Amino acid sequence: MSPEPILLTPGPLTTSLRTKQSMLHDWGSWDVDFNSITARVRAELVRIIHGEASHDCIPLQGSGTFAVEAAIGTLVPRDGHLLVPLNGAYCQRIARICRILGRRVTTIDYAEDQQVSPTDIDGHLGRDASITHVALVHCETSTGILNPLREVAGVVAGRGKGLIVDAMSTFGALEIDARTTAFDAVIAASGKCLEGVPGMGFVLARRSLLERCEGISHSLAMDLYDQWAYMNRTTQWRFTPPTHVVAALDAALAQYLAQGGLAARGGAYAANCARLLAGLRELGLRAFLPEAIQAPIIVTVHAPDDPHYDFKRFYNAVKERGYILYPGKLTHVETFRVGCMGQLGPDGMGGAVAAIGAGLDSIGVTLQRPERHRA
Amino acid sequence: MSPEPILLTPGPLTTSLRTKQSMLHDWGSWDVDFNSITARVRAELVRIIHGEASHDCIPLQGSGTFAVEAAIGTLVPRDGHLLVPLNGAYCQRIARICRILGRRVTTIDYAEDQQVSPTDIDGHLGRDASITHVALVHCETSTGILNPLREVAGVVAGRGKGLIVDAMSTFGALEIDARTTAFDAVIAASGKCLEGVPGMGFVLARRSLLERCEGISHSLAMDLYDQWAYMNRTTQWRFTPPTHVVAALDAALAQYLAQGGLAARGGAYAANCARLLAGLRELGLRAFLPEAIQAPIIVTVHAPDDPHYDFKRFYNAVKERGYILYPGKLTHVETFRVGCMGQLGPDGMGGAVAAIGAGLDSIGVTLQRPERHRA
Repeated sequence: MSPEPILLTPGPLTTSLRTKQSMLHDWGSWDVDFNSITARVRAELVRIIHGEASHDCIPLQGSGTFAVEAAIGTLVPRDGHLLVPLNGAYCQRIARICRILGRRVTTIDYAEDQQVSPTDIDGHLGRDASITHVALVHCETSTGILNPLREVAGVVAGRGKGLIVDAMSTFGALEIDARTTAFDAVIAASGKCLEGVPGMGFVLARRSLLERCEGISHSLAMDLYDQWAYMNRTTQWRFTPPTHVVAALDAALAQYLAQGGLAARGGAYAANCARLLAGLRELGLRAFLPEAIQAPIIVTVHAPDDPHYDFKRFYNAVKERGYILYPGKLTHVETFRVGCMGQLGPDGMGGAVAAIGAGLDSIGVTLQRPERHRA
Repeated sequence: MSPEPILLTPGPLTTSLRTKQSMLHDWGSWDVDFNSITARVRAELVRIIHGEASHDCIPLQGSGTFAVEAAIGTLVPRDGHLLVPLNGAYCQRIARICRILGRRVTTIDYAEDQQVSPTDIDGHLGRDASITHVALVHCETSTGILNPLREVAGVVAGRGKGLIVDAMSTFGALEIDARTTAFDAVIAASGKCLEGVPGMGFVLARRSLLERCEGISHSLAMDLYDQWAYMNRTTQWRFTPPTHVVAALDAALAQYLAQGGLAARGGAYAANCARLLAGLRELGLRAFLPEAIQAPIIVTVHAPDDPHYDFKRFYNAVKERGYILYPGKLTHVETFRVGCMGQLGPDGMGGAVAAIGAGLDSIGVTLQRPERHRA
């Protein structure tokens, strides 16, 4: 078998061999050996946000979106009213979930290269007292833009409202500190910055709020209150857990901690991102976002303005060279995306940049490379 | 590391090494290599019920219960009325889901050692024309009782109603044939008789019905129509798939087919079950169900009537001997359960019976063994 391509995607991503090898066992979902893993994972996830005094971790079967829907459906009362600032596909998805769940929703529209503004949110909260919650996406994976979580949290807390944070693509790499940032819930998943495999989401919810959320959910499977109460009572999951996924997350967390935790993970991704941005510039490619608002998670790149460019051919050419890219998710401009996460192999991001350059060459795309030495 | 215990549980169960080794890779969820796996799995699952002409497979992230809720929420109109015959915990769960989802529900109560009666169902359907659907659990994993699917399907079809079948613990081992048995949907999961790992459910739904189910679901994540339409349009999952779980199911299905498919799997489980029942009798233990209505999936066993018996101690004693049992799920009588599924290792069910006997001995339980040679 040829070496498998490295995933430059924002989860699933390339996990370590040790993480994958942790799945070479079967666990009984009722057995103490497995339930000890669940307990350890829950505790570690809470520690990452320094939430021991305030928050509890509720893992949920399924993808991250399942956990986002579960959090909204469980933590926002049926007559709640959410303010959702929109600057990408994942905020749009939250607004869609609110509508399907019958929660009132107000949106603030931004361009996809524009950060959410705390001042705008404060204005809305000041003008419309019926708004009960704000839902914020920390990093919009659709572009890679970082939203100002701390500032938004300050504004929301100042108005006495609830904050729900989709931290899917930042959790574990960018700091979220429950001691200094007020939020009702932070949501993420196993297969993102923690570098586990996909199949499990989790919600870190304020314990004092959770206690008041019995009977709110629209769903049995996605009732976080029920999942939480049952798990705390029995140590077990309510319904069959994705045992191998949970074990892989446990193994991934052990490596994460041994490698230095959030500071190290965030630092590695920032270095990957800087190397990528520099490499793209060298190749003559343009990032979609200004560097100041670029999260070190995934970079959206303008497609070359060249008649030979075709994403599918480019994708395959880069894949042949050992790397899997991610398609763009913008409707008004052609882009592709490159993740900065996961195990990048011995050649690191340099190898990825070289593959992107060689891939473009191979499909006949010629780029205007920047002049190295200006007079 | 000591050899890991064999799971005598109804999923998660002990999978083959080959199935687990299939998880030693990472896949991009957008990549054709992974989407080919998804397509192959979907097609194989449809073939198992001979549903190529009539049914389509919609995989769903999460446990089997997620897929059950998704099926009810998507396929039963909001003003639908379900008849749910109750003879165990999983039928009870379906009724609970119906109530949470706001679907009208009528139940028929049975004792847990009594099969659902097609005549009773026909009577209800005849008396109450407002009933639109019947929801049946094929094998109640809470006891191991088999319900008469074909007969129930005949009655329901005769009345022109819809049938939703929770086949969680029978799919792939007991015959369900879409050509001769009428149903709207059959629901199962990756980690049961197909011997994959847990983390994915699936619904085999009648295509002509699915086409009319847009906008019914109470949920975005569990909207089977949306999942189906998106997957058919793009070949991809709507939200991050549990890539390793899907790959493991693909590997498990390849082994399943190579070993002879449903007839072989069902035959192996039936042999396991017969060996287990004989062994339990030899030990002086009593099965909860008469053999005629016992599905070859999981056996509920009366706890020994002995003051030294304690489930936790018994469980640990058997675990030390290499096998993981399953607790009973009956409220009115003390039992434990033994699964007949999965990879039982070189000693087969005989090894499990020996461990059960030795485990009971070790905690001081003395059983009245049957007389071998009556005069």
